[in-house]
Amino acid sequence: MIIIYRLKKQSKLSIVDKMIEVEVKAKIDNFEDMEKRLNELGAEKTKKEFQEDLYFNSPVVDYAKSDEALRIRTTKQNEDINIFITYKGPKIDKNSKTRKEIEIGIEDSDKCSEIFEAIGFKKVRIVRKNRQYFTYKNFEITLDDIEGLDPYMEIEIALEDGTDYNDAQNSIFKLFEKLGITEGFERTSYMELLENLYK
Amino acid sequence: MIIIYRLKKQSKLSIVDKMIEVEVKAKIDNFEDMEKRLNELGAEKTKKEFQEDLYFNSPVVDYAKSDEALRIRTTKQNEDINIFITYKGPKIDKNSKTRKEIEIGIEDSDKCSEIFEAIGFKKVRIVRKNRQYFTYKNFEITLDDIEGLDPYMEIEIALEDGTDYNDAQNSIFKLFEKLGITEGFERTSYMELLENLYK
Repeated sequence: MIIIYRLKKQSKLSIVDKMIEVEVKAKIDNFEDMEKRLNELGAEKTKKEFQEDLYFNSPVVDYAKSDEALRIRTTKQNEDINIFITYKGPKIDKNSKTRKEIEIGIEDSDKCSEIFEAIGFKKVRIVRKNRQYFTYKNFEITLDDIEGLDPYMEIEIALEDGTDYNDAQNSIFKLFEKLGITEGFERTSYMELLENLYK
Repeated sequence: MIIIYRLKKQSKLSIVDKMIEVEVKAKIDNFEDMEKRLNELGAEKTKKEFQEDLYFNSPVVDYAKSDEALRIRTTKQNEDINIFITYKGPKIDKNSKTRKEIEIGIEDSDKCSEIFEAIGFKKVRIVRKNRQYFTYKNFEITLDDIEGLDPYMEIEIALEDGTDYNDAQNSIFKLFEKLGITEGFERTSYMELLENLYK
């Protein structure tokens, strides 16, 4: 079980199996320039992955309104395919903006999708992206090429015990600045950004 | 995807990935005697498995009434643990008694149960059994020791292309007879038999 704390407008704080992560994303101009800058900085390219997220809506609640999500994620890295069910809960309270995230690995996406539909859930959107991973110091940086959206970059940091959340968040914004990004920060999920395009 | 055809009162006909299976179960006196008879007949003991089925009910439909089922099955064979989500659909029409069954392997039962509850499903019953598998000719025989129920035995046969369903079913009843069972045939699922106990 993963509990995600969303704090400031543009960042997310997550507890992933007792490891705390802070994540910020921003729109960027293009991937080539950013990859060059990451390279110059000394960031290490680790992997490239294709991710396909199939989102479902509930027959009982409208997840767009309740701020929940149920999805099947398929990741492809070379010949390696992994599939997951992820449920993201609504924020538990308005102050801490805590939310629950539960994820399990499964063997088949099509059959799972059939099960979800059989129990009353409706497919609402597919989000496809090519995600390139980089590491720099204790940061994980991803360049996200989402089908239908502008180029985005995410920076994530895992908090060690006792590290202050604000310090971690500040270090992320400093890294963004180092890479030439001082605006375009975005808290809305890729799925919602795509939804908004079709409204 | 598995499509199950239920035909006569006491038997089930299933299409499992294009392989057709007929299945009949019956109450028996005790496992020791039956194992002895199976042994004398020349049936081969293949494996022993513990199965735990966790059944859920939908927030939209009462599965007891709609004749559907959603369950998480965990099987343990020595150190080998396998977990599955299974959805069983209602009969598609009254004549052929066709029903759909979809099953996928998953990595974790507790987290999956948390996801099901998070999306509105309620745990309704756990069915636990020790199942012993035997093979004899083209039959699969199981001795089912279900927690809270009498001893049961199931006989299943995989139909080869062109084999008549009735012939297959008759061969199962003949095998039951050979093993001393001429009554106590039961079409109700173990889950429903347990439900009936608590009504």
